[in-house]
Amino acid sequence: MDKILIDHGSGGLLSQELIQGLFLKYLPTQRILGLEDCAIIPGRQGKLAFSTDSYVVDPIFFPGGDIGRLAVNGTINDLSMRGAIPFCMSLSLILEEGFPMADLERVIESVAHASDEAGVPVVTGDTKVVPRQKADKIFINTTGMGVVPDHVEISGASARAGDVIIISGSVADHGVTIMGSRAGLSLGGELESDTAALNRMVEGLVSRLPGTVHAMRDPTRGGVATALTEIAQASGVAMEVDEAKIPVKPGIKAACELLGLDPLYLANEGKCIVIAASDQVAAVLETIRSMPEGKDATVIGEVISGPAGRVTLRTRAGGARLIVPLEGEPLPRIC
Amino acid sequence: MDKILIDHGSGGLLSQELIQGLFLKYLPTQRILGLEDCAIIPGRQGKLAFSTDSYVVDPIFFPGGDIGRLAVNGTINDLSMRGAIPFCMSLSLILEEGFPMADLERVIESVAHASDEAGVPVVTGDTKVVPRQKADKIFINTTGMGVVPDHVEISGASARAGDVIIISGSVADHGVTIMGSRAGLSLGGELESDTAALNRMVEGLVSRLPGTVHAMRDPTRGGVATALTEIAQASGVAMEVDEAKIPVKPGIKAACELLGLDPLYLANEGKCIVIAASDQVAAVLETIRSMPEGKDATVIGEVISGPAGRVTLRTRAGGARLIVPLEGEPLPRIC
Repeated sequence: MDKILIDHGSGGLLSQELIQGLFLKYLPTQRILGLEDCAIIPGRQGKLAFSTDSYVVDPIFFPGGDIGRLAVNGTINDLSMRGAIPFCMSLSLILEEGFPMADLERVIESVAHASDEAGVPVVTGDTKVVPRQKADKIFINTTGMGVVPDHVEISGASARAGDVIIISGSVADHGVTIMGSRAGLSLGGELESDTAALNRMVEGLVSRLPGTVHAMRDPTRGGVATALTEIAQASGVAMEVDEAKIPVKPGIKAACELLGLDPLYLANEGKCIVIAASDQVAAVLETIRSMPEGKDATVIGEVISGPAGRVTLRTRAGGARLIVPLEGEPLPRIC
Repeated sequence: MDKILIDHGSGGLLSQELIQGLFLKYLPTQRILGLEDCAIIPGRQGKLAFSTDSYVVDPIFFPGGDIGRLAVNGTINDLSMRGAIPFCMSLSLILEEGFPMADLERVIESVAHASDEAGVPVVTGDTKVVPRQKADKIFINTTGMGVVPDHVEISGASARAGDVIIISGSVADHGVTIMGSRAGLSLGGELESDTAALNRMVEGLVSRLPGTVHAMRDPTRGGVATALTEIAQASGVAMEVDEAKIPVKPGIKAACELLGLDPLYLANEGKCIVIAASDQVAAVLETIRSMPEGKDATVIGEVISGPAGRVTLRTRAGGARLIVPLEGEPLPRIC
């Protein structure tokens, strides 16, 4: 069977074949917990974190990743940004009739690989199939659960004047890669999505430096600019950020100039903004940089007193401009 | 703004308007927990239940319900069938560009109403928009969390020879209603989906009659026939079911005959099969019938020793036939 048929979404025999032959092959935790419509997970202490995201990225395969890897890492990161330790996730697929089985296997293998790497198993799932042209290839929902250690209180509303603003690495890689893929751009090996799970980095920060991190955000849709304005607004503070300090890879910068895009508004899928107490900045940077996905972490600015939500960018030219949140969708189906 | 624009999925200003103006209007629990990408929920004791489902039903509005109500009730029911007490859910939307805002509001209002009725709040969400013809109007994923009381051990693998098989009400209402809607059939008021949340019924059973219910299943896609064969297979038992005892409303029966459909294979969205110790049958029936959604509950058969998965139907004509699981998809996009 090399294509998805309507019957693969029937709940009948072909659905069973798909579950047994494909999903359980790559995602065996579901088998351990029993293949019911609902997974039962042993009890946990502490506050629970719960996050959902649907992924509709186009193309579904791109340099550095694919929709499966993106769906796993994205939900892990949403949990991690609250200081939660993710412990399991669900996987729900909407497939277009005729979607190649080989592509589905490639996506599920990628889900499994990302899930293993991050240590966050897929424990329950669902598959629906819709007729041709009623969906585009594959849409994936992942919903994740995590536990927040009792002492952890991290939120986008908790940035304080005096805090430092850190970015864990270069910006705009994912957004430019997707746009470049669609435009058929090739700029050597540098056009590559940064999709990565940040849970281990966050676990390191939270366990080694309790109370130090006040706010975190993964700058996905809307990019660093939108994430910063949202945190500043929610926390009732202003911010100053230094353009020259924000890392952008040369190939990404070139592509942005070519396409007329501002890297500060483009999506990242493996980066986080960390807003932390300034007296611990060396320890925070050291912890983030100790992880491969955080090796280029750097301070890009500071939180100051001022009108809630005002984020000022000090430009390379020595001027200053206000950063406004994203108004439109520069790039539909980026994630 | 009367239509969904691509920018409503941008994560930018229009996304914010949609969240503030529509989602929070109807689903205020999200506001209490803070509008981050991930909800933090106070800790719970006990085993956790976790279930996900994507809903792609066509048409999205039908007699007796709509895709929003279906999405809430369906996930609550999947949790309930394990004996879990659902306590929160996520809501993730994939919208087609151009989807009428009025329809979206109607769906979200319905989500809110169903969530209130069941007492299971929506605590986190996500919205993506894809260009026209890349999805069909609206797809909804709901993922729910529940707590399983320590003494509860209900699973599709726990039916035992000697148990009674109960259905909580008439069968095939949802399947026939959807098919009838598409065919433009009108059979008076009887063509109406049975979509309903079963969590209160299950809570009643589990708290009043601990240990009595061994297995439960909501017979959605594939209907009662498929659900029974799955339980019989998983539990390593056989079953005998009496066709004359299975309640089918007259209008539903007439529509099935007209359309050439077997009601035993059609979807239900507010019914459950309850397999329980036979010495408690009166108490189980009384508990189920005390709820409006269970008033027509009745015993339809029994679990017997025999080859795993063999389900025999005693027909009205006095014969017997084997029930086989669903092989194809009689009705794509039924839920």
